Amino acid sequence: MEQTIRKNAVKKKRLGAQPAASTVTEVAKRAGVSVSTVSRILNGTARVSDDKRRSVERAIEDLNFKPNVLAQSLKSGQSMTIGVITQAVESPFFNELLKGIEEGLQGSGYASLMASGHWNSQSEIERIRLLIARRVDGIILLTGNLNNEQILDLATQTPIVAVGHNAHSENAASIFIDSRMGGYLATKHLISLGHRRIAHIQGPQEQNDASNRLHGYKMALEEAGIAFDEDLLAQGDFIEPGGLMAMNRLLDKGVSFSAVFCANDQTAYGARLALYRRGLRVPEDMSLIGFDDLPMSSYTTPPLTTIRQPVYEVGQTAAKRLLRLIRGEGAESVNLNVELVIRESTRRLG
Amino acid sequence: MEQTIRKNAVKKKRLGAQPAASTVTEVAKRAGVSVSTVSRILNGTARVSDDKRRSVERAIEDLNFKPNVLAQSLKSGQSMTIGVITQAVESPFFNELLKGIEEGLQGSGYASLMASGHWNSQSEIERIRLLIARRVDGIILLTGNLNNEQILDLATQTPIVAVGHNAHSENAASIFIDSRMGGYLATKHLISLGHRRIAHIQGPQEQNDASNRLHGYKMALEEAGIAFDEDLLAQGDFIEPGGLMAMNRLLDKGVSFSAVFCANDQTAYGARLALYRRGLRVPEDMSLIGFDDLPMSSYTTPPLTTIRQPVYEVGQTAAKRLLRLIRGEGAESVNLNVELVIRESTRRLG
Repeated sequence: MEQTIRKNAVKKKRLGAQPAASTVTEVAKRAGVSVSTVSRILNGTARVSDDKRRSVERAIEDLNFKPNVLAQSLKSGQSMTIGVITQAVESPFFNELLKGIEEGLQGSGYASLMASGHWNSQSEIERIRLLIARRVDGIILLTGNLNNEQILDLATQTPIVAVGHNAHSENAASIFIDSRMGGYLATKHLISLGHRRIAHIQGPQEQNDASNRLHGYKMALEEAGIAFDEDLLAQGDFIEPGGLMAMNRLLDKGVSFSAVFCANDQTAYGARLALYRRGLRVPEDMSLIGFDDLPMSSYTTPPLTTIRQPVYEVGQTAAKRLLRLIRGEGAESVNLNVELVIRESTRRLG
Repeated sequence: MEQTIRKNAVKKKRLGAQPAASTVTEVAKRAGVSVSTVSRILNGTARVSDDKRRSVERAIEDLNFKPNVLAQSLKSGQSMTIGVITQAVESPFFNELLKGIEEGLQGSGYASLMASGHWNSQSEIERIRLLIARRVDGIILLTGNLNNEQILDLATQTPIVAVGHNAHSENAASIFIDSRMGGYLATKHLISLGHRRIAHIQGPQEQNDASNRLHGYKMALEEAGIAFDEDLLAQGDFIEPGGLMAMNRLLDKGVSFSAVFCANDQTAYGARLALYRRGLRVPEDMSLIGFDDLPMSSYTTPPLTTIRQPVYEVGQTAAKRLLRLIRGEGAESVNLNVELVIRESTRRLG
């Protein structure tokens, strides 16, 4: 940590990203601290003692000092800002990612400028263009509908770390989560509990994550010698209402099944309510497994068995990889593992 | 909508916020469209036909044109960026607020730069300083621990709209939600269902919202001639684990009660799980009411009766008021109402 701080301070100096020397010097002089301490407080890059902070703040106030970061940015060619393209600000999934990104940026002096692509590739490209025009130093792209070619093309203009993609170049790294393995583990868990009639509520078909999870489900069935049954498949949309309606359709079909693998946790919440409405108990009458391990999944009744995506770590890793890209330390993609989290919504059949 | 677009386009011209004329002219010429169309596409401020967009994009690519918004910002004195101080990126409450803010900014050409204060006034002030140093054109402060004096002081440096505060000046407006009324309505609803022994799991005592909700609870009890009983009060923390532990403490005390007013929905989720663990049914054995109406509250089992805060509208209104402040159209504070949403977690006693 101490080393990172020093490195950043040096970096700042080299880049000229600190406020005009004369004024900072005045503040430092009045506060009785070093110029680099003032710089660190202004950039929010480091912890300093409360005493020092207070004297610097007093000096800043006394001198009515206003550093002009915009002018510095222009001078240094660095905006100390990264762009984050999310798909839906209101999703708890993106929340966790954003929290991870924020933690990953901590101590770097970077702040993030966030824009939403709304699961629409045209709108995604527009937002990315907007961020590039605002001279962000790099972009984190959280899932979305762009293909690899489009991402690599944008990466010629700014460093990009793409979450949930598989794009790699000198200027682009990807953070990939093994969704197929997740679908496999979820289904295998149900099979290991004796379930053979296992339904799946899938996510939007055009999304990679959704088709990979479905693929994993089929893999596990095949491995166990259980024939895939189209009748046990229902279309969801990754949010609660879709999960509720899909579960209703499955129940209305009159096909028999004892367990459901839901493409994500929000789908499982909706499916759970559909079961509640019909007086079906979880897990006594129906086992239910989700995917994501959102914070709320520890507090549903019953708490939800699910596949944990290391969402927070994904955000953190994305931020750190992007900082490395920006510093010219190379592009490195990462493949993060999922894991099964057994809670109380699944149980042995019989 | 059409009018807004035109107004914005004119505004941009006046402010000099569009890219250096010569280069945009080249792009416009090559694309066969007007300069203002190019400007609108670059700023992402308006819908234009797909055909036009495609030709502009082609021209931009052909000319390898990169508008330097940073330089423009400096020239115009406008960064076309607002800062948003949230307290916890991962909270579903702030999600809804952020979504509302994004919608409120739509079509204005403004993007938001978000930073988290982590419910810590020192960290809040640091973040605000950081945003001011980055020359945001204004700041939306989402709740937090700053007092009015601190907010008004910061507002001398940049326009501020403060959500959940009561700070007013030429350069500061507040969006206030009537939490006390909410606490009153929640408790009155339980009383109207025949409950007399009503517990309250309160939020962190240092937060205005929490003390206002408690105040409203006491008001409703007093109005109904029910003596306030200290034994029915338990301390929560506005998140699930605190709700769970508070409910456990209430149950362990051995005092009798038939209903609980939880200071927010997340507290209610935790309390609900505590009841589930002990085999107590909601609402048959215990009525439960929350506060916020988070999206998830429609999907808990049973769906949660709660007080709806117009969270999304708050975000939207905050964004619009800030844009007005930035444009010099004056500061206007707004008081938004809460409402009771009756679902299935409360029922008549007996």
